Amino acid sequence: MNLCMYLPNGQSDVKVRAGIIGATGYAGAEIVRLLAAHPNVEIAWIGSRSNAGETLSSIYKNLFRIVDLPLVDHEDPEPEVTADLPVREAILKLAQDVDVIFTATPQGACAQLVSEELLSGTRVIDLSADFRLKDVAVYEKWYGIQHAAPEFIREAVYGLTELNREKIRETRLLANPGCYTTCSILTAYPLIAEGLIDPDTLIIDALSGVSGAGRGAKTANLYSEVNESVKAYGVAGHRHTPEIEEQLTYARRQKDAEAAPVLVNFTPHLIPMNRGILATEYASLVKDGDGAPVTDDRVRAAYEKYYGNEPFIRILGAGSCPETRFVEGSNYVDIGWKIDLRTGRIIAMGALDNLMKGAASQAVQNMNVMFGLPENAGISMIPMVP
Amino acid sequence: MNLCMYLPNGQSDVKVRAGIIGATGYAGAEIVRLLAAHPNVEIAWIGSRSNAGETLSSIYKNLFRIVDLPLVDHEDPEPEVTADLPVREAILKLAQDVDVIFTATPQGACAQLVSEELLSGTRVIDLSADFRLKDVAVYEKWYGIQHAAPEFIREAVYGLTELNREKIRETRLLANPGCYTTCSILTAYPLIAEGLIDPDTLIIDALSGVSGAGRGAKTANLYSEVNESVKAYGVAGHRHTPEIEEQLTYARRQKDAEAAPVLVNFTPHLIPMNRGILATEYASLVKDGDGAPVTDDRVRAAYEKYYGNEPFIRILGAGSCPETRFVEGSNYVDIGWKIDLRTGRIIAMGALDNLMKGAASQAVQNMNVMFGLPENAGISMIPMVP
Amino acid sequence: MNLCMYLPNGQSDVKVRAGIIGATGYAGAEIVRLLAAHPNVEIAWIGSRSNAGETLSSIYKNLFRIVDLPLVDHEDPEPEVTADLPVREAILKLAQDVDVIFTATPQGACAQLVSEELLSGTRVIDLSADFRLKDVAVYEKWYGIQHAAPEFIREAVYGLTELNREKIRETRLLANPGCYTTCSILTAYPLIAEGLIDPDTLIIDALSGVSGAGRGAKTANLYSEVNESVKAYGVAGHRHTPEIEEQLTYARRQKDAEAAPVLVNFTPHLIPMNRGILATEYASLVKDGDGAPVTDDRVRAAYEKYYGNEPFIRILGAGSCPETRFVEGSNYVDIGWKIDLRTGRIIAMGALDNLMKGAASQAVQNMNVMFGLPENAGISMIPMVP
Amino acid sequence: MNLCMYLPNGQSDVKVRAGIIGATGYAGAEIVRLLAAHPNVEIAWIGSRSNAGETLSSIYKNLFRIVDLPLVDHEDPEPEVTADLPVREAILKLAQDVDVIFTATPQGACAQLVSEELLSGTRVIDLSADFRLKDVAVYEKWYGIQHAAPEFIREAVYGLTELNREKIRETRLLANPGCYTTCSILTAYPLIAEGLIDPDTLIIDALSGVSGAGRGAKTANLYSEVNESVKAYGVAGHRHTPEIEEQLTYARRQKDAEAAPVLVNFTPHLIPMNRGILATEYASLVKDGDGAPVTDDRVRAAYEKYYGNEPFIRILGAGSCPETRFVEGSNYVDIGWKIDLRTGRIIAMGALDNLMKGAASQAVQNMNVMFGLPENAGISMIPMVP
Repeated sequence: MNLCMYLPNGQSDVKVRAGIIGATGYAGAEIVRLLAAHPNVEIAWIGSRSNAGETLSSIYKNLFRIVDLPLVDHEDPEPEVTADLPVREAILKLAQDVDVIFTATPQGACAQLVSEELLSGTRVIDLSADFRLKDVAVYEKWYGIQHAAPEFIREAVYGLTELNREKIRETRLLANPGCYTTCSILTAYPLIAEGLIDPDTLIIDALSGVSGAGRGAKTANLYSEVNESVKAYGVAGHRHTPEIEEQLTYARRQKDAEAAPVLVNFTPHLIPMNRGILATEYASLVKDGDGAPVTDDRVRAAYEKYYGNEPFIRILGAGSCPETRFVEGSNYVDIGWKIDLRTGRIIAMGALDNLMKGAASQAVQNMNVMFGLPENAGISMIPMVP
Repeated sequence: MNLCMYLPNGQSDVKVRAGIIGATGYAGAEIVRLLAAHPNVEIAWIGSRSNAGETLSSIYKNLFRIVDLPLVDHEDPEPEVTADLPVREAILKLAQDVDVIFTATPQGACAQLVSEELLSGTRVIDLSADFRLKDVAVYEKWYGIQHAAPEFIREAVYGLTELNREKIRETRLLANPGCYTTCSILTAYPLIAEGLIDPDTLIIDALSGVSGAGRGAKTANLYSEVNESVKAYGVAGHRHTPEIEEQLTYARRQKDAEAAPVLVNFTPHLIPMNRGILATEYASLVKDGDGAPVTDDRVRAAYEKYYGNEPFIRILGAGSCPETRFVEGSNYVDIGWKIDLRTGRIIAMGALDNLMKGAASQAVQNMNVMFGLPENAGISMIPMVP
Repeated sequence: MNLCMYLPNGQSDVKVRAGIIGATGYAGAEIVRLLAAHPNVEIAWIGSRSNAGETLSSIYKNLFRIVDLPLVDHEDPEPEVTADLPVREAILKLAQDVDVIFTATPQGACAQLVSEELLSGTRVIDLSADFRLKDVAVYEKWYGIQHAAPEFIREAVYGLTELNREKIRETRLLANPGCYTTCSILTAYPLIAEGLIDPDTLIIDALSGVSGAGRGAKTANLYSEVNESVKAYGVAGHRHTPEIEEQLTYARRQKDAEAAPVLVNFTPHLIPMNRGILATEYASLVKDGDGAPVTDDRVRAAYEKYYGNEPFIRILGAGSCPETRFVEGSNYVDIGWKIDLRTGRIIAMGALDNLMKGAASQAVQNMNVMFGLPENAGISMIPMVP
Repeated sequence: MNLCMYLPNGQSDVKVRAGIIGATGYAGAEIVRLLAAHPNVEIAWIGSRSNAGETLSSIYKNLFRIVDLPLVDHEDPEPEVTADLPVREAILKLAQDVDVIFTATPQGACAQLVSEELLSGTRVIDLSADFRLKDVAVYEKWYGIQHAAPEFIREAVYGLTELNREKIRETRLLANPGCYTTCSILTAYPLIAEGLIDPDTLIIDALSGVSGAGRGAKTANLYSEVNESVKAYGVAGHRHTPEIEEQLTYARRQKDAEAAPVLVNFTPHLIPMNRGILATEYASLVKDGDGAPVTDDRVRAAYEKYYGNEPFIRILGAGSCPETRFVEGSNYVDIGWKIDLRTGRIIAMGALDNLMKGAASQAVQNMNVMFGLPENAGISMIPMVP
């Protein structure tokens, strides 16, 4: 029994003071839930534009008697002081009090508030897509909005912890990955980086629980519209596509720096469940020089090379199909695969909890790395079944 | 408003007497439900080995006061007469009374009871896989059992009504297709038959509600094991694969009788909902002689050519994603697609109700064709939303 | 096997032309679905304020190729003609074309459009609460709005078909009951009318699927807010309470015209499922003169007296617990009960489909009665399991 | 923000060695999950009769890489040694190694293995009903089995931690309460003990998620049998009834030691969700001497008196309806109520997670008390929403 990763919570004396913008969305509220139980964090304030003045626990009653802070409006945190200030200056009032700000906000919002002055005193972990893509033109094309702070894109670090740990340590601006992308990239990365599959054949078919669609009051996400049904959406046009492609291009260029960008088909589906993402990925295995097919051993070796020592990635092995229930409520990603000798393809599968490793707990994992805390502090929960 | 297909129920005076073997499974009970309201059918008897003597309505209380027949044991229908008879002779007692027998039984059961004497007097519609595959070796390999009546495979007609209507009219032995296969084949068939895609690139990613797993008391299908989770299963080895491949090979050979068999990757997933199958299919579009990509118009034309006059196949069109809720409780198949110019692939999607068009209502549709009834008799229900 | 109720659809030559106001809500769309397959109905027009100009089938794609009428705005049906008219006059344009109008509209809307002129030419079946309560003061207190047409309350007939069939035949204005109320009243009515229980002890604990909350875009009804949870709501204040109490008071006054009004505790709960209402009702059984407890036989006799010949009420019997799945998609109400000798109480239980017998199919049942059609025409569907 | 209860995990140096019998059921596996992350516990062994030899993590893959112990057969833990021993002697082999044994076993199993010798060296926390009822005749009547160790009933302590904390500290044999009962009793106890309601009018209507039905392979608990439906079951006969009645009788006798036993109507319902119990309880409020009705203030005072300092009971207050999602994954019980002045009744509502406070986390809470650990050690998780 390997319990080592569950033992030494709180072994660090560091205390990080944190603020959360966008706390009433599912990802924001999940960050609050995690930080409230984190041994090295004090929550300084939590923010919401639409519910400013209320307590978060009047909406998320799971937090009743646990987090009873009032919600502040980050664009107007102290009305008598900040009423006439632009957002970038108003937010500095809130920033004075904290070491880190989490932004769980709609696309574009974080870019509007970052500034050199902000980042000089406070680190920012952004859960939106604002700083995930290095090419601002790609961002503006897929998201359809102008980027308000392109000058910070370069320094932002893409927060797939397992792939970028060293850069994450030092960054002031962390671009936390999307839920689909975390799952899709982690499942395919070693196979591409180790040259086992032809990236041009990669097809990612992904299934998501409904919490990924957010807490906005939209008819399409009503219980009776979603329950007892399944559909694809955003086919050949979902915004997570370029994020996946950029990261997998880095994988491809591990062996050939001149390799063409990876293009994938990424098809998300909405599934009637609260949490969870499953990515089923198809690609043709490369042939060896002698034409021998890639074996399960080589696939396993590739995954072990990248994730063998990772506390939060579990390699289930050949023939094993991950299930979202087995990662629910945790920071784990489970990966399995099957080689089909008939067609020469591999089917690789990854599963995670979209609000945890796909959003909030990965954000906390990144915070832990950024502040030198034990990487599993506050996020070592065992998945809950059923 | 096109109501024509809903009007003339009961316009035929024919009365077909039917028996159902395996009535306590979900597909069997669904056939009983459909036949009980069918204007041209009388249910003569319903059978179940495990619940013989009980009424079906004591189990399926939706049928209370509607179908109150007792269940008979088809291997021993009249204990004092048939106790010592082998199955093939015992079943003749039941067959005397009916024009058609539906077998909604485990693999192998139907093959054990068909005989020349049975088929001389009664037509059989088999919902198992026993007579779906023309190559008995393929059957025995994928199902792992010896075929008990290979001599009838040749005459059996594969009951995808829309593709085989003429042959269905005359057959004595109808092999009703599987649920995944009906959806997978109908979605891809015109694209292959019209040469729009490269069949060797075809990947079928399919999602199914849990009723497809049957009513057997298995831990894996308990509510708390299936709910709030999703998984792939039978990856690269699901039994519906050869059935899909055989039919799609026929499609490919429409233009080239010598073409190689189609091999596909077919990956089913279990989704927490009762009913419904969604197939998301990926394939590379062929290039024209001049290198121009295939257009939506050509895709639509292909679907229209095959299904334009079909009452139960609805072509939703380019950019439209079918949802299982919009076919639930009906015999419809909804098909949509999206061309991805970036990758040169088409994503074609089909949706149906696995217990209806994927099993029971297609069986009734085939019965209607076999007995010269209006094809929509008893199966023209409008899908129920939500 | 009793199939008689399923056979002779379409035996009447009558054609009723119908219009539906509020067709994009769940109840309204369900009426359209039922009428589209009804052998004696032609749908003349369907209305929606918010989606006027669109087709209903672009929203409810289950109706694709089946009902492709555009939606009209009932407050402005012919813009060039009706733009300046008040609602009551504008609606007369639409009324000219139909025999019956169904109003599946928010509280107050139907009262605003009925007029003597309208009712002179067209019959109205209102699915809102506007004409259900005979005491306008009670209506205005519980619904918090002023009644716009109290002069029609008196003539309106409460459409619990099984209890008011004769009055329904003749009425111009039918007040279709609420979903909770249909279930609650039918379960308790015979027990009170026959004097078997003490009405002052009656407690109604009810569970409803989420479609009962409507299709409005409210955060509280999002999938991820409702799924995997259950709650009571409207405790001691739900609007269906006075409707239940008024009808059960009539029951009580069957034997004693001077009896006090019935007051009940009615507690609705929201359950994570699409359809279905279950009412679990508790009451103390009366003692006979000799102190002997009420028996199952007497309970059954009471139910048989009221419902023994009813096609759509199924008396399951003593010790039998109705399940909503066994009535789903149908017009049935299933009723069972259990006597607890330890406490001297009866627990009576009723189940129905809230969008069918709780709304749309009961509205059609009432229409059938009003127009002399077979009472089961268009609504004889067998419940669908699973 | 009150974070105090989340901080000082691991503040005790005590290490408790634990064994779990029945680890493959939902409650047993939940205990393992909790203990694996408990700062003061080492899991010595885990047991299962049906899966002996396998690892628990091959079944509960959420535990993969976390708990990889093999399962032992508690009736035959060391085959070469214990094969011929009766259960009570065989279990002593396992008991040598641990301080506490949790039994998450079917009714009757725990009674068969306890003995003076066992309890002399090891404390037992039993999650079955074997030692919950003080009257062995009541046990044998409601459970239909003979009690194998009635001599230990007297010393067993009923483990509703909040009501029996002092006795729990010292006991060797802890009878952990049922899930329905924990919720039902805690909600009603203060109201009865403080004399605010008439216990003879108490009706408990309860709703449970499906995990409460266990992990046995029963058709009735299949996904497609349970999903999209709701039903009452065990009406007027559920086994948790006498347990509720016994404890509430103690409440009644707080003020009058001679008071009659409490008899209740308890009606459980099965709801399509994994976890959660909601109890909706109805009772007539007593009248004061001056006839004034009981007020919300007096109700609140009663709850505050009993639970005001309890870390795991949250008094939501008047007019507030608890929702199971807000306690899911936690040890909390949320309680709210509504007074209905029209009928003179109170509707009190309680919610908990049936596998946590209703089983496993309450068992761990009791273990913490028994071993002098911080009461919240290992069970202070914040509920997870959605």
